[in-house]
Amino acid sequence: MSKVVAQCIGMSLDGFSAGADQSMDEPLGLLGKDLMGWFFPTKTFVDMHGGEGGEIGVDDGFAAASFGRNGAWILGRNMFGPVRGPWPDEEWKGWWGEEPPYHVPAFVLTHYAREPIDMKGGTTFHFVTDGIHSALEKAKAVAGDRDVRIGGGPATIRQFLSAGLIDELHVALRPVFLGKGEPLLAGLDLRELGYHVDKMIPGERAVHMFIRKND
Amino acid sequence: MSKVVAQCIGMSLDGFSAGADQSMDEPLGLLGKDLMGWFFPTKTFVDMHGGEGGEIGVDDGFAAASFGRNGAWILGRNMFGPVRGPWPDEEWKGWWGEEPPYHVPAFVLTHYAREPIDMKGGTTFHFVTDGIHSALEKAKAVAGDRDVRIGGGPATIRQFLSAGLIDELHVALRPVFLGKGEPLLAGLDLRELGYHVDKMIPGERAVHMFIRKND
Repeated sequence: MSKVVAQCIGMSLDGFSAGADQSMDEPLGLLGKDLMGWFFPTKTFVDMHGGEGGEIGVDDGFAAASFGRNGAWILGRNMFGPVRGPWPDEEWKGWWGEEPPYHVPAFVLTHYAREPIDMKGGTTFHFVTDGIHSALEKAKAVAGDRDVRIGGGPATIRQFLSAGLIDELHVALRPVFLGKGEPLLAGLDLRELGYHVDKMIPGERAVHMFIRKND
Repeated sequence: MSKVVAQCIGMSLDGFSAGADQSMDEPLGLLGKDLMGWFFPTKTFVDMHGGEGGEIGVDDGFAAASFGRNGAWILGRNMFGPVRGPWPDEEWKGWWGEEPPYHVPAFVLTHYAREPIDMKGGTTFHFVTDGIHSALEKAKAVAGDRDVRIGGGPATIRQFLSAGLIDELHVALRPVFLGKGEPLLAGLDLRELGYHVDKMIPGERAVHMFIRKND
């Protein structure tokens, strides 16, 4: 059955899932790379980037599993790029070069309309200007019985959580401090929103927390 | 060498180290017991309460170790009791009955002076009205080469962290949500304050995070 999921979301011990001051050089914000320090050494990540080797283990297992069932993605505007406000032109096509790692339709939340972009490898970016419910409807329509994956960033995940629209959220909690940045859970009453922590599984460089909607 | 430590501080995945609405019936606030859900099954806890059995393992190891080196404790007013404002009388002597689990001098931070109280088993409660630096000085004087342990609650630990006075903070991160309560780390820039996460050790019912001051 199709679910709405957010997976492999790095979170620091002080609660941030993106660093401050996102820029061209720092897509994850200042120190944001520390959040993904569990993912970079995995075989899954190394393979994705045409490398050899990479570690196999708990962290890698979750990284690999997260790519299996995605029928569509939803991305926040900042996850798609550093451009703010109206699109100045058609030049920006995401952080990922010619072949993004999605390989299915990816719906980008934005206030500014833009034509869809077909990328190599099956990713098509669609731009949705009428909010998260509309984006989810469109994503579900193309995902069929596969999952709709909310890619991030934190503000987007918080919107979906607040609306109770996420079925499963996998947080990779990291033993690092960011000090400042974008919080993932702070200020949300997840208990009130009907969520609980279903499983806690220690990995090599992160603790994997699986948050699920109550039955 | 004597250190200033805070140990076995439960924290929920949403960042709270005490529940909301502390009362006589709920010393840890609403749902606050969930924070200590890793501690209650341990042999250390069961022994302390005259029971038999109890689990031995990682969680128990840290629980047991935390009681070995304490030469003095510092407690916030709310950790000592539910009484707010001036002491109405001398009746309240802490949450713990006649023999509190400290067995050394314990300095209680308060705005309202009160005579020291000698309890069974070596605990003496001293009431300190002139702030955290004064309390720490007094505690260090009696602790000698043993540690000064900041017992909590969260507001007290935050005060000491903000002043850079804690050498080591052991957080037992729990896979639970509180939804509301008293945050432990939110709003503190621990990186700026010179702290890092030194070790992450998974236990049976909590992940133990050891936060240390940078050298």
